[in-house]
Amino acid sequence: MNSSEKRLVEPRDFYFGDGEESALELDCGRKLYGVNLRYETYGRLDASRTNAVLVLHALSGDAHVADYHTMQDRKPGWWDEMVGPGRPIDTEKYFVVCSNVLGGCSGSTGPRSINPQTGKRYNLTFPVITIRDMVRAQKRLMEHLKIDRWLAVIGGSMGGMQALEWAITYPECVRSAVPIATTSQLSPQSIAFDWVGREAIKNDPHWAGGDYEESAPNQGLATARMLAHITYLSDESMKNKFGRELQESEHYSFAFQRDFAVESYLEYQGRRFVERFDADSYFYITRAMDYFDLAARADGNLAAAFRPAQAEFLVVSFSSDWLFPAAQSEAIVRALLRNKLRVTYCEIASGYGHDAFLLEIETLGGMVRDFLRNQLREVHRAG
Amino acid sequence: MNSSEKRLVEPRDFYFGDGEESALELDCGRKLYGVNLRYETYGRLDASRTNAVLVLHALSGDAHVADYHTMQDRKPGWWDEMVGPGRPIDTEKYFVVCSNVLGGCSGSTGPRSINPQTGKRYNLTFPVITIRDMVRAQKRLMEHLKIDRWLAVIGGSMGGMQALEWAITYPECVRSAVPIATTSQLSPQSIAFDWVGREAIKNDPHWAGGDYEESAPNQGLATARMLAHITYLSDESMKNKFGRELQESEHYSFAFQRDFAVESYLEYQGRRFVERFDADSYFYITRAMDYFDLAARADGNLAAAFRPAQAEFLVVSFSSDWLFPAAQSEAIVRALLRNKLRVTYCEIASGYGHDAFLLEIETLGGMVRDFLRNQLREVHRAG
Repeated sequence: MNSSEKRLVEPRDFYFGDGEESALELDCGRKLYGVNLRYETYGRLDASRTNAVLVLHALSGDAHVADYHTMQDRKPGWWDEMVGPGRPIDTEKYFVVCSNVLGGCSGSTGPRSINPQTGKRYNLTFPVITIRDMVRAQKRLMEHLKIDRWLAVIGGSMGGMQALEWAITYPECVRSAVPIATTSQLSPQSIAFDWVGREAIKNDPHWAGGDYEESAPNQGLATARMLAHITYLSDESMKNKFGRELQESEHYSFAFQRDFAVESYLEYQGRRFVERFDADSYFYITRAMDYFDLAARADGNLAAAFRPAQAEFLVVSFSSDWLFPAAQSEAIVRALLRNKLRVTYCEIASGYGHDAFLLEIETLGGMVRDFLRNQLREVHRAG
Repeated sequence: MNSSEKRLVEPRDFYFGDGEESALELDCGRKLYGVNLRYETYGRLDASRTNAVLVLHALSGDAHVADYHTMQDRKPGWWDEMVGPGRPIDTEKYFVVCSNVLGGCSGSTGPRSINPQTGKRYNLTFPVITIRDMVRAQKRLMEHLKIDRWLAVIGGSMGGMQALEWAITYPECVRSAVPIATTSQLSPQSIAFDWVGREAIKNDPHWAGGDYEESAPNQGLATARMLAHITYLSDESMKNKFGRELQESEHYSFAFQRDFAVESYLEYQGRRFVERFDADSYFYITRAMDYFDLAARADGNLAAAFRPAQAEFLVVSFSSDWLFPAAQSEAIVRALLRNKLRVTYCEIASGYGHDAFLLEIETLGGMVRDFLRNQLREVHRAG
């Protein structure tokens, strides 16, 4: 794309919760005052205000789904291939909204924000939040935008958790939901990986119990990211991408520097991540995922947990995703069917592992495009 | 077992390589002088010296396979259920030998040993060793014990790599080999996990580039161990063992301390590991595994790599092992068959993941028992 063809988008801020009544009540029992949500919108809200699509980002995502912030930006938003004019989430048809999650570090209120009550950074005094708390904050944004019902809520990984949460917590506000590569509860294996990632951060002397100022615990955060990154790829994709290729020589170095291409790749991923992410946010967002367990709200009965839901669902999993395997999506589908909800389910054959939700744009995009078009048609028919 | 019934075993030391001629030549091109191997033996070598079985340990194992060192020991050796009178590797029939690997930290020469040429610890000046180097050192021990041919070489995980290496590097010395839950080359995913584990150690300020003296980098080493431990279990076994059970309360703590039973378990495993393992050894032994790639010696042709082998093989994998999946054992089996070697292969159905080689004693033990008995019978028939 020629730079003159770059579409620009401007991030916005929605601030709420200054007073006692408007403060955000959280699952932990505490209240959060003075909350900012950084968000972006694409396309136009139609006169009937029925074409709004909420995109929900994953752990390391942010509000910047598509387009560019400046002409100088080298990369567009994280789901640019999915969102734009003529693209699967077509901004000529839909009004697309995405906000950085509560607890995040890309403009929304999180652990590194200033606590209005003390004038200092929260750090680890920030309340531990849940996926539902993230969704509660998004509901405030929805009201601010004067939208009564999302045409669709859609997201992959942690974004999918939020989509499920929306459908259960605010059923009247969700016409359809598209949870992709996600789960209704984090498995003990994933909890374990999150734990080890946080331990790696804790061990970084710069972390200082979360109270870092000048030097951030970037080594620890990079290590946590490298670990998580392994879980986002499949064994197969790593074999195809790197195999046992050496990076700089034809022979082993017989040392502990980078030898293998996969080591070099991970190091690069870790280094890039710390440029845009924050260690304390990593604590809060991984903990929110650890705590996510829909079935637990109904004594372990997932179908009962989905009882309030009214939305129509498109559930998508990927065959090589071992972080949130297809079986976890199938459990969601069974629970939805038990509630006589309309569900389309597809396990997409892909070698990309969990990251497939960012990469299998052709297959995934085609399904999302058709699903949204059907939703819009039904709205128009009903209206 | 009553403590009066405890069988005791005494570790021994075999020291070699003081002079230029007897020094150990390594794959990296360097020589190692003054090498100690800590080893243990069980049972008796028969008059024909043909009943010797070499047991090869995994990453975190040591020479102490079975029995107790003192009456006060609470736990026996790491494969006690497999090795002993009447047990699958029956010490009433076989003379069992196991040595701590070169590079290890349980009595054999490794990075924390004193370099005889400087009078100081090697630390990271210790040469980077390979699985073949470990086997070369074991060959010296074999000569010292005046054994010409092992009835069997047997080991799981990294122990299986050594078993394969023995069969290729010293074919005339190996009557049979039992590689269990192993691979002929480390996959990029495993290389990646090893890399992240070493990064976690590096980030510990106590590591000091490997030159720690007073305080060891125990936090970093514990983190590396916790990560590795996840890869030793299966998703299924973690679900069965812990699920999403909370450790101390019925409710989430809304904090970052241990909440889940799986977190508590990992923390315990990490804490225990640092009592018996060393961070620099962790660097060397994981690197030896990273470098292990039999096919690479024959331009990627695994069958050609096995051409020198003469042994009869029993290859065992476990269905839920995702670290060294069954497909990797099957690749070994195909390569052995291509060389017209006698091979028995079994994929044992188990939910225990990679750790199954330490846990599925009944199934695994039964096969090993019969296999060894057949080997001994053939020796006696031939003799």
